[in-house]
Amino acid sequence: MAVHGGLDEAELHTFGLDPTAVLDFSSNLNPLGPSEAVLRAAAAADITSYPDPRSTQLREALAAQSDVHPDQVLVGNGATELIHLLVQAYLGPDLCCVILEPTFGEYRAAAEMAGSTVVPIRATAENKFRWNIATAAQTFRDRCPSLVFLCNPNNPTGRYLDLPEVEELADAIPKQGLLVLDDAYAHFAEQAWDACSLLERNNIVVLRSLTKAHALAGVRLGCLIAPKSVVAAVERRQHSWSVNAVAQTAGLAAVKDEVHVNRARCAVRESRDYLSHELRRLGLTPEPSVANFLLVDVCNASVVRKALLQQQIVVRDCASFGLPQHIRIAVRQRHECEQLITALAEVMSP
Amino acid sequence: MAVHGGLDEAELHTFGLDPTAVLDFSSNLNPLGPSEAVLRAAAAADITSYPDPRSTQLREALAAQSDVHPDQVLVGNGATELIHLLVQAYLGPDLCCVILEPTFGEYRAAAEMAGSTVVPIRATAENKFRWNIATAAQTFRDRCPSLVFLCNPNNPTGRYLDLPEVEELADAIPKQGLLVLDDAYAHFAEQAWDACSLLERNNIVVLRSLTKAHALAGVRLGCLIAPKSVVAAVERRQHSWSVNAVAQTAGLAAVKDEVHVNRARCAVRESRDYLSHELRRLGLTPEPSVANFLLVDVCNASVVRKALLQQQIVVRDCASFGLPQHIRIAVRQRHECEQLITALAEVMSP
Repeated sequence: MAVHGGLDEAELHTFGLDPTAVLDFSSNLNPLGPSEAVLRAAAAADITSYPDPRSTQLREALAAQSDVHPDQVLVGNGATELIHLLVQAYLGPDLCCVILEPTFGEYRAAAEMAGSTVVPIRATAENKFRWNIATAAQTFRDRCPSLVFLCNPNNPTGRYLDLPEVEELADAIPKQGLLVLDDAYAHFAEQAWDACSLLERNNIVVLRSLTKAHALAGVRLGCLIAPKSVVAAVERRQHSWSVNAVAQTAGLAAVKDEVHVNRARCAVRESRDYLSHELRRLGLTPEPSVANFLLVDVCNASVVRKALLQQQIVVRDCASFGLPQHIRIAVRQRHECEQLITALAEVMSP
Repeated sequence: MAVHGGLDEAELHTFGLDPTAVLDFSSNLNPLGPSEAVLRAAAAADITSYPDPRSTQLREALAAQSDVHPDQVLVGNGATELIHLLVQAYLGPDLCCVILEPTFGEYRAAAEMAGSTVVPIRATAENKFRWNIATAAQTFRDRCPSLVFLCNPNNPTGRYLDLPEVEELADAIPKQGLLVLDDAYAHFAEQAWDACSLLERNNIVVLRSLTKAHALAGVRLGCLIAPKSVVAAVERRQHSWSVNAVAQTAGLAAVKDEVHVNRARCAVRESRDYLSHELRRLGLTPEPSVANFLLVDVCNASVVRKALLQQQIVVRDCASFGLPQHIRIAVRQRHECEQLITALAEVMSP
């Protein structure tokens, strides 16, 4: 299983910490929480009957929102389920998967589970976590990957490739290969471009989380927008009633509530600016990020994380991303960020 | 995808029917609905944070309930997810899966998706839907299945094998093979025996739905109880955060609420007796059933189902079970069963 952020109840128990008293900076969710409208919808969901196995209403709403046909949309039990189904449909032994790393660990976990060869293209701290696009394109031509995973904006670096860069990558993928664009964090970027504008190329799969922008991680909801043939191939592998009724109902309300996401985007920008400024004041150098998290080199992530934990603050140790010097800090509300900075100042003081 | 019961919104729309006005006899759920305690727990679930990826609390509660170690329990996104994960762990091309049919369609759907050979052992109406245990055992010895699926009590026939019969089957499975005992409907049987009593044999996997007995089909929740090595092999294939927060919280309340299930069992017996009697009065012959559904030969299931639909009643056409003459009727509350009998009397009248 891939390592992820979020509270570890067993660990909190070991430290004698109450999970409800802990400030979680390790999960990248909307800092405002869910909207009232979405909470009301979730509470009114019918949990006594089987959910619609095709998520028909939500599918239609998502299709309308992205101006595509409902047959180009597949709803999943979190984007994570869709990653695994894509891998089951398009990878296997003897097939190659390219992953632009460091990134979300579930792509690699899924590809390795399928017995595929994983070819990483790795951005480094020395290059400010920028990939060399020409080198990446050449790798695609050389290795003929069946799937390429690109998280954009990227988790954990916060880097955001622009449209021409992604087009250059998509152009370099040999026939039959698919570029999976995971834009789970695009909601939080101020100058976001529409990944769906690339769909007519026919080798693009747009993967979306519907829970990060609405702080609904508990219900599990994601979607995939792709050519109809890709949706059909992936849907064939999805087990019955995979998407629960609360997720479908809350998701439908969330799609209609763009105002809440816009408010979150403003809150994220303000808190991110504050955090960046204060981290620099502490002598740290956060990577520039368009998303709702910041990657920061603290020399020893494990030590800093443990010290913060004792102050009831959880950050993400990036060792599982291959970055044992870095922590990832989610952008929360301003007053919560102030608590983090106070704690961090104490932890980092010589 | 396998065909299942439940309301088909597109179909209801075609007939101009309001889903909330329709009586659903096609889903086999607790006729009393969920208990108040479970509804309260579901409403209080934290949907804003990631769910515990290991479902720790629920796992421990289920382990305590069945007197096994928590490492022998795996919680899933419905029993259906666990069927697919079992298949991914233990089947594949060149491997054989035996299924005691007619039964729940998802076993075959999953096994075929994995490219396995499916060997059905089929009970027929002529034999009152009883399998020949000796023949089945011989098939196991001949075909060396990696997995055998037995739904007990069986959906849609309502037949329930007793402990010695299942032991005879388990004895006949060659080494390395596993017998998956799906006891989703055992809660409703009055003389249920404990499938977990077979666990020490080491070739038994008990599969449980937690939503049927508590009418929680909307949240998706199931579990698997098996030797630790089997749980570990299946869990490795489960994607992160597969079980949502509402399911975990409601499930925990459900495990503690056996009183509600006991009440449901009484209600099911009473309604089932009533339905059996009335169906016979209409000249029909329901199969004897220990579960919360009845299988009935009506000559042409498709015609009868459509006629009932026009009276806002949905039953399960068993054509997808290979039984185009049969319908399956869920046992609902007494006054609802009376409505069904009135409608059926009209439909069946010459």
